[in-house]
Amino acid sequence: MLEPLAPIGRDPDTDGYVRDAWSPAEMELREWFAGEAARRGLDLREDRNGNLWAWQGEPGPGRPGVVTGSHLDSVRQGGAYDGPLGVASAFAALDLLRARGVTPARPLGVVCFTDEEGARFGVPCVGSRLLTGALDPARALALKDDDGDTLADVLTKAGRDPGRLGRDDETLSAVGTFVELHVEQGRGLVHEGRPVGVASAIWPHGRWRFDFRGQANHAGTTRLADRDDPMLPFARMVLAAREAAARLGVVATVGKVRVSPGNANAVPGQVSAWLDARGAGERDVRALVRELAEGAGAAVAEESWTPVVSFDEALRDRLARVAGGGGTPAPVLPTGAGHDAGILATAGVPSAMLFVRNPTGVSHSPDEHAEQADCEAGVVALADVLEDLCR
Amino acid sequence: MLEPLAPIGRDPDTDGYVRDAWSPAEMELREWFAGEAARRGLDLREDRNGNLWAWQGEPGPGRPGVVTGSHLDSVRQGGAYDGPLGVASAFAALDLLRARGVTPARPLGVVCFTDEEGARFGVPCVGSRLLTGALDPARALALKDDDGDTLADVLTKAGRDPGRLGRDDETLSAVGTFVELHVEQGRGLVHEGRPVGVASAIWPHGRWRFDFRGQANHAGTTRLADRDDPMLPFARMVLAAREAAARLGVVATVGKVRVSPGNANAVPGQVSAWLDARGAGERDVRALVRELAEGAGAAVAEESWTPVVSFDEALRDRLARVAGGGGTPAPVLPTGAGHDAGILATAGVPSAMLFVRNPTGVSHSPDEHAEQADCEAGVVALADVLEDLCR
Repeated sequence: MLEPLAPIGRDPDTDGYVRDAWSPAEMELREWFAGEAARRGLDLREDRNGNLWAWQGEPGPGRPGVVTGSHLDSVRQGGAYDGPLGVASAFAALDLLRARGVTPARPLGVVCFTDEEGARFGVPCVGSRLLTGALDPARALALKDDDGDTLADVLTKAGRDPGRLGRDDETLSAVGTFVELHVEQGRGLVHEGRPVGVASAIWPHGRWRFDFRGQANHAGTTRLADRDDPMLPFARMVLAAREAAARLGVVATVGKVRVSPGNANAVPGQVSAWLDARGAGERDVRALVRELAEGAGAAVAEESWTPVVSFDEALRDRLARVAGGGGTPAPVLPTGAGHDAGILATAGVPSAMLFVRNPTGVSHSPDEHAEQADCEAGVVALADVLEDLCR
Repeated sequence: MLEPLAPIGRDPDTDGYVRDAWSPAEMELREWFAGEAARRGLDLREDRNGNLWAWQGEPGPGRPGVVTGSHLDSVRQGGAYDGPLGVASAFAALDLLRARGVTPARPLGVVCFTDEEGARFGVPCVGSRLLTGALDPARALALKDDDGDTLADVLTKAGRDPGRLGRDDETLSAVGTFVELHVEQGRGLVHEGRPVGVASAIWPHGRWRFDFRGQANHAGTTRLADRDDPMLPFARMVLAAREAAARLGVVATVGKVRVSPGNANAVPGQVSAWLDARGAGERDVRALVRELAEGAGAAVAEESWTPVVSFDEALRDRLARVAGGGGTPAPVLPTGAGHDAGILATAGVPSAMLFVRNPTGVSHSPDEHAEQADCEAGVVALADVLEDLCR
C-alpha cells in the first residue's frame, strides 16, 4: 500500500525519510495523492491553505461529508508510516467500500493536510491550524526555514498565493465528521494484543525555545574564568528537564539544538534548545516548564501550546464498537502525540482516530513499523467505520 | 588597512564574518590579495596546495627568502582581524620599507595560507599542513563540508587540480624565515601595557569527536523509561569537561554539536559533539580527554592533534629586541591558538610570531578588535623585523 511512496524523500544513508512541507519530496507525494484521486474519479481540490481534498459526492450547505485521511510530510529522518499510512488507508478503505457495493449516503472525502510535522518551519499542524483559524496567517507566513526562507517565500515559489491563507469556513463546513487513521506511536496495542485501537484523548503538549546567551570567544586562548559559555547552562537544563519530568510524571525532550557560531574551536555565543513537554495533566506540564525556565538563565519563548483534546465520546464509542468487528470493542487509548484530528476536534468538528499496532512503539525514526496484516486490519476497520458513518 | 575587506563575507545580522575556504567570500579575498600584489609589482604565485605567495625578488636554491603573512579565511561568525590583520600588515610593512628606502638583501615574500581555520572541512591549517606534508593529501581530499561536498569536489569546482595536492618542497625551500603577525587572542599584552609582543610557544592542542548514539523516537509517546536518549550523556560530558579542565589546569570547549535527526518533537538518535582541549602540558590535556572518553559512553575519534610548538629561541629573542624599538624588548607570551607559523616551525622552518594587543581578548567573534594605533605599531614592528632579517 505504501510501496509506491517508499523511494520518495528517503535518505539512502539512513533509510529515514525527509519530507519537508513544500519540498520536492512532498510535492511528489502531493502528485501521488492527485493521481490516486484521479484514478478513482474523485473530485480533487486544494484549499486556500494548501490542504488537498478528494471527494466522492459533492458536499454542500446542509450536506457535510465524512472525511478520512492524514498527512504526507514527515519529521526529518522519520519513518514510512506516520502520516502516509492514514492517507493510503483512506484510499484503500474507499476501494473496499466499492468492492462491497456500498453506496454511501453522504459525501465521502479523503484529505491530506499540509505540514503536519512542522519539520521545516517549527510549528506543527500548519495546514489544519490555518484551516480552523487556530494559527494566524500573518504569523504563519513569517515563519522561516533553516535557509531563512519564509513560508510566504516558499508558497510563492510553489505557485501558491500566500494572501489566501487563513480560516476557511467553506472548506471546514464540508467536514461533518473526521476520522484519522494513524500508526500507533507507543506500545499500547501490543499490550492489549489487538491490531487496531481508538483514541480517547491527546495529551496537552507544547514546545518552548530556550535561548542561552553568552560570549563567543576563542577556545584556546580564553581562560575558563573569563568565559561566559552558554553550553554549560544548556547542559544543566537538559539534565534538569529529565529529572523534573520523572518527578512530575510527564515527558520532556530536547531534540533540537542550535549552537552559534558552531565552530569546534570557539566558545559558543549562543545555544538555542527546543523543549518538548507533554503529559496527562496540564498543570504538571506547566510546572515543568516554569521550573526549567526559572532555573535556566535563558530567554524562554512558548512556540506552541495545545491544550488537552478529548475526542467526541459518542463518536469514539461508536468507532470502538464498529472497529471491534462485532466482537469485543477496540481498545481506547490516550496518546502523547499531536494530530490534525486534534486540531479539528478543538475547532468543534466531531473527530476520532484509529490506531494501528506498532510492534516496537518506535516512531519518528526509520525503525517505525507496522505489520502488513495489521495495516490490512486497519483498512478493514476504517472501511467499517466509514460505512457506518455514511449510513 | 582592513577597510577594503570589511564588507566581504560579513553577515549583516550579526556583523560576524563567514569566510569559508573556497567560498565566494574567500575567493573575493584571494582576488584582493592578487590585486595588492600586482599594485606593488610583486610576483604572484599560487602553490600546488592553494596558498598564495607574492614575492619581491626571486627566491631560489641557496637563496631562500624572508616571508610574512597569515590567512584570509575566518571561523564562522568570526572577527575582522584574525588572519587578515597579518596579511594586510605584511603589505603595509613592505610599503613602509620602500618608503624608508630599504633595499632588502634577501627575497621578501607575502603569503596567504588557505583554510587556516578549518571552518568548512573541520581540519585547521589545511594549506600549511599540506605544504609541509603534515596532512595526507588523500585524507584532505576526502574531507566533507556541511553540504557533503568533498575538498576534491570544491577544488575542482574552483578550477584547481586536486591531484596536485601534497608536500611541496620547492615552495617550502623558498621560505628561509617566516614571521606571522596576528591579533592577540587573549589579554596578555593588556596586562603588559604594550601594543606588540612575540610568541614563545603554542600550547599542544587537539580536537576530538564524541558520537553519542541512542534510539530516535517520538517525543510525546515514548515513556521516559523506554528512552535511549543520547542528549543526556552528552550533557553530562559537557559538564564533566568543564570540571576536569578546571581541575587539570587546561581549557576544554564544546563549541560544535550536531543532533540527529534534530526534530523538536523527536528523541534524538545521535548527538555528535566536538571537544577542543589545550593546555601548557600535553600530559594534562591527554588526561582530560582520556577521562572524558572513559566516562562518556560515546565513540571518540581524534580529529587532530598538534604537539607543543616552541618557536626558535634565537629568532624569538631577536624579534623581541627589534620589536621593542630600541627600548625594553617586546614581551614574550605563549598562546593557546594554533597558527600556520606553528605548522612551519614544526616542519623545521625558522618561524616566529608577532602579536598585536587586543583590548578585550575576545577573538573568533564579531567583537574581536584591535585599536588603530596598535595595528600601526604592529606594522612598524613588522617592518623593523623584516628589515633586520633581510640585512
